Amino acid sequence: MKYTSAFIPTLREVPADAVIASHRLMFRAGLIRKLANGLFAYLPLGLRSFRKVEQIIREEMDKIGALEIKPTVIVPGELWKQSGRWDTMGESLLRVKNRMENDFVVSPTAEEAFTSIVRDELSSYRQLPLSMYQINTKFRDEIRPRYGVMRGREFVMKDAYSWHADENSLDETYKAMGRAYRRIFKRCGLSVIPVKADSGAMGGSGSEEFMVESEIGDNTLILCKNCDYAANVEKAGCAPDFAQIPSVEAAKTAAVNTPPVEKIDTPNVKTIDELCAFLGAQPQTFIKTLIYRAVNVELDLSGAPGCAKLERKKPSPDAPQVYPEAFFAAAIRGDLDVNEVKLAAALKAAEVSLASDSDVARLTNAPVGFAGPVGLAALPLVIDHTVTAMNNAVTGALEKDIHYRHAAYGRDFEAWMTSDIRTVKAGDNCPLCGGGLYTKMGNELGHIFKLGYKYTRSMNVSYLDENGKNQIPTMGCYGIGLDRTLASVIEEHHDDAGIIWPASVAPYHVIIIPIKYDGEVKAAADKLAAELARAGIEALLDDRNERPGVKFNDADLTGIPWRVVIGDKGLAQGQVEIKRRSEKESRMTETGKAAGELTENVLKELAELNLKH
Amino acid sequence: MKYTSAFIPTLREVPADAVIASHRLMFRAGLIRKLANGLFAYLPLGLRSFRKVEQIIREEMDKIGALEIKPTVIVPGELWKQSGRWDTMGESLLRVKNRMENDFVVSPTAEEAFTSIVRDELSSYRQLPLSMYQINTKFRDEIRPRYGVMRGREFVMKDAYSWHADENSLDETYKAMGRAYRRIFKRCGLSVIPVKADSGAMGGSGSEEFMVESEIGDNTLILCKNCDYAANVEKAGCAPDFAQIPSVEAAKTAAVNTPPVEKIDTPNVKTIDELCAFLGAQPQTFIKTLIYRAVNVELDLSGAPGCAKLERKKPSPDAPQVYPEAFFAAAIRGDLDVNEVKLAAALKAAEVSLASDSDVARLTNAPVGFAGPVGLAALPLVIDHTVTAMNNAVTGALEKDIHYRHAAYGRDFEAWMTSDIRTVKAGDNCPLCGGGLYTKMGNELGHIFKLGYKYTRSMNVSYLDENGKNQIPTMGCYGIGLDRTLASVIEEHHDDAGIIWPASVAPYHVIIIPIKYDGEVKAAADKLAAELARAGIEALLDDRNERPGVKFNDADLTGIPWRVVIGDKGLAQGQVEIKRRSEKESRMTETGKAAGELTENVLKELAELNLKH
Repeated sequence: MKYTSAFIPTLREVPADAVIASHRLMFRAGLIRKLANGLFAYLPLGLRSFRKVEQIIREEMDKIGALEIKPTVIVPGELWKQSGRWDTMGESLLRVKNRMENDFVVSPTAEEAFTSIVRDELSSYRQLPLSMYQINTKFRDEIRPRYGVMRGREFVMKDAYSWHADENSLDETYKAMGRAYRRIFKRCGLSVIPVKADSGAMGGSGSEEFMVESEIGDNTLILCKNCDYAANVEKAGCAPDFAQIPSVEAAKTAAVNTPPVEKIDTPNVKTIDELCAFLGAQPQTFIKTLIYRAVNVELDLSGAPGCAKLERKKPSPDAPQVYPEAFFAAAIRGDLDVNEVKLAAALKAAEVSLASDSDVARLTNAPVGFAGPVGLAALPLVIDHTVTAMNNAVTGALEKDIHYRHAAYGRDFEAWMTSDIRTVKAGDNCPLCGGGLYTKMGNELGHIFKLGYKYTRSMNVSYLDENGKNQIPTMGCYGIGLDRTLASVIEEHHDDAGIIWPASVAPYHVIIIPIKYDGEVKAAADKLAAELARAGIEALLDDRNERPGVKFNDADLTGIPWRVVIGDKGLAQGQVEIKRRSEKESRMTETGKAAGELTENVLKELAELNLKH
Repeated sequence: MKYTSAFIPTLREVPADAVIASHRLMFRAGLIRKLANGLFAYLPLGLRSFRKVEQIIREEMDKIGALEIKPTVIVPGELWKQSGRWDTMGESLLRVKNRMENDFVVSPTAEEAFTSIVRDELSSYRQLPLSMYQINTKFRDEIRPRYGVMRGREFVMKDAYSWHADENSLDETYKAMGRAYRRIFKRCGLSVIPVKADSGAMGGSGSEEFMVESEIGDNTLILCKNCDYAANVEKAGCAPDFAQIPSVEAAKTAAVNTPPVEKIDTPNVKTIDELCAFLGAQPQTFIKTLIYRAVNVELDLSGAPGCAKLERKKPSPDAPQVYPEAFFAAAIRGDLDVNEVKLAAALKAAEVSLASDSDVARLTNAPVGFAGPVGLAALPLVIDHTVTAMNNAVTGALEKDIHYRHAAYGRDFEAWMTSDIRTVKAGDNCPLCGGGLYTKMGNELGHIFKLGYKYTRSMNVSYLDENGKNQIPTMGCYGIGLDRTLASVIEEHHDDAGIIWPASVAPYHVIIIPIKYDGEVKAAADKLAAELARAGIEALLDDRNERPGVKFNDADLTGIPWRVVIGDKGLAQGQVEIKRRSEKESRMTETGKAAGELTENVLKELAELNLKH
């Protein structure tokens, strides 16, 4: 391809709103242009790389037996009403009424469309497991689209869905997807961090996010310095700060020298900070106790304090029994925060949130700020591991303006449940190896998760099992954002001069720069281009009538992995100059050998990136 | 690929609304499913064929130097307001407001999006010509979507646009596109009829539609029995019914025996039918005269009757001068109809329509029904060629309830313009060779046309020419509907049992049917599948535990070009059965040679379809 025929409008200026490298470079290198806020057009160079990412994803999906289909982008609103998401999705869902006043949705994901197809065609267990995917346009009406295609309104997503007769089968596909995702990102030249993510809101358990490090990432990641533990802070666990969680008896023994529990007046002191100031003490010496309201609790509460009158219900005929509403006290060391996602997971609750002031007053006999574990009888007490090591603590006394001091676990109170419910911070201990944890900001490129029965139940999907009995299949879903993946490649592979493409997703493998596209230099450049084409190497020939400096700058900016410079002087000595974009030094090589060397180098890099593992 | 892993839900029943073969067969063969009225999902088998059509189109576009880009599907309404189509597109345009109350359009075509990109990047004549295309989702809110994907609401279109410094350059690209379109359809195995279509409404001249014959086609095509003349009836021309159009003098001479023109009373007789009945004569003996109002007439009317006071204006600064409104009389033989598109083209008018009753009364001094060429002075008279041969005709006398008889062209009236303005019918004479014309119904698969300056003017696109002077580029646009192309392949290639795919767009080349997928038969089937895979031939292995009859029926229905049946008996003799889907007879071949024979046959058909021409 000749440069003058390729429409590559490079720019020296950076758009004012381009604050991250990929956004700046995609604009400057002529990969994308903005049509409106959050809406971008891929230009020829950008689309070439985009299609390579697309093809890598397609190959890896096909390899694990997922079948590509193509539902519509505009989907009947009726399907979203069946799943319930018409009401729950909020304003990021772009809804349209057509001229017949029918409701439509511009798809942000496609659980409904895929499930409706499977619903109509699934009859027998013999059709399961089934995995299908699409690579198609999606729309989310972001309030603040930014960072270029990293967070646009329209984007392309590969979304796959799978249906299974049992949990084992789902787990098998889920794991195969996880391996495929690792191959996809590796082939794109990306370093991803697979993290266990919470999937509570998605309606199932078992979930992994594929993150890339990014200063503008939406997610805080918790990583271990010693081992490969990685988790989203929303769900990250940690080991206790002490060797072993003591038994109640051991805790009681540890409190042998602690004076008896004693009330102290703490007028108008409600928060930990106020308490610290009032008592001149560190927050580590306090037990913080919070009252939570939990919704749809699966855990058996029949023996739990204050729960005797609660009744279990089934939200739908096929769903498990749950307590629609229950209250809990959660106690944690004063310097730490309760992680509500982890608390909900420990309680097997759909959701937990802080109880209202009136519920707190009713359940603790005191206004907000004076709850504590000692003497608490009206509701189950969940304590974080840290509390088990506290044998001389200050805590609320269930009375207005009163706290206890010298409170000791095991002696003055016991817990209904002990669990890791803290929000993990840098410096905490790795739950796997005990090593030091640290944090990174990350952007999510992909997400795989076990959906369970959420859609198959609400949309009435069923099949006949081996015994002719009606069953509901369980489901998984698996997404990758293509635009964001491409932008992340640039985030990871660039320098001050421009992009440094990995060969697998480079728009061209080689750029040929004749110093002046004329005479013998032209002939040599054309010959090299033809030789590379025959070898299947994609070359861009910069035939512009521009100064060499302009051509070199554009070559660096567009980031094509290999550069060949052909000039009169070199040719006179039978040589051309070859330089790898990622390296500083260039070298001269024999004109006749250039094509061979370049081909070998490109194929070598491609082989390394595509390496099976 | 194994059949049990391929998700091919074939059906025996036909959906009630499936009235054409492609719709029926795409459903029955499991290629598509309906999500809602006019919205279809491609299932794995259908998408495989769809992607092949897509790839053929992409290759042919790339071959002629068109560059693929990808604007968004959801496009800012602002761009459509700039082009003016926001107001003119009507209700088939799906409009959306997002949560910020911004207007968007779900693209039905993309002149605006492409032109806005070019507007921002075009600066110099050196960047021209430029051709770009996308293959992307489109939406038209059809009132009555039907015939499956042949007329759906959401569809995929390849739309290309080109920009040029001059008419010659546009013509070159236009012709290259025409050749590429011929190759595309040939490679898909389609017989297309390229016809000259009217492009008046599209804002330019020079246009070709690529039609396939179809009983449910939207277009009437006029074709010649002798030569390859083909035109849309909207624009079809014809040769006169007589050897030569007479001069005024010759016509006068021909009327030498005609009695003088004479008034006759025709009370309350206004239409040709009424006149025929009243006079007991054939419509061929009448001259029908209609009064038209024309808008934006480019033709010079300075010497035309009744036009002395008309003034020319420029609708926009760069547009040519036009008369915003002008009236014309159009006369034609009584058995024929005036073709308004041809009349508008003859007048170089944007549009013509019948004048209002009051305008007719004002201009002819008579109510509607009594206009005629004799004595007409208030407006220019345009006559169809047929009228030049009429030397003894009945016609309106410009008086209520009065007609003339014995009216003769040349003697009693002359014309301001003589032109072919009739609507052509079967039996008329070919304008090229004089042969007999006949009609067919056709469906449009593709359309190429010269847009001219419509979008570049309204959206303010310009560049600097060689002399540094600001110029506006001219533009072409070129579309192909992918879904409709795929459906048309099935329309052309099927029989009562199912589809008969051309190899180029077949979802698989070969289907391997083991009579029972077990033991030696299984081993032979697996071996053949592996051999074909190594040869690059796509094979589907029917591993289902079904009766042979079911497998044969599904093989015929899904239309895979080659079928191999492997059974115990044949294997015992070292043979398998090979059958081509398009042929009746099967034959036995040596097991060891089957892969080679099939490969050779598939590659031969592919080579024939892809033949350069």
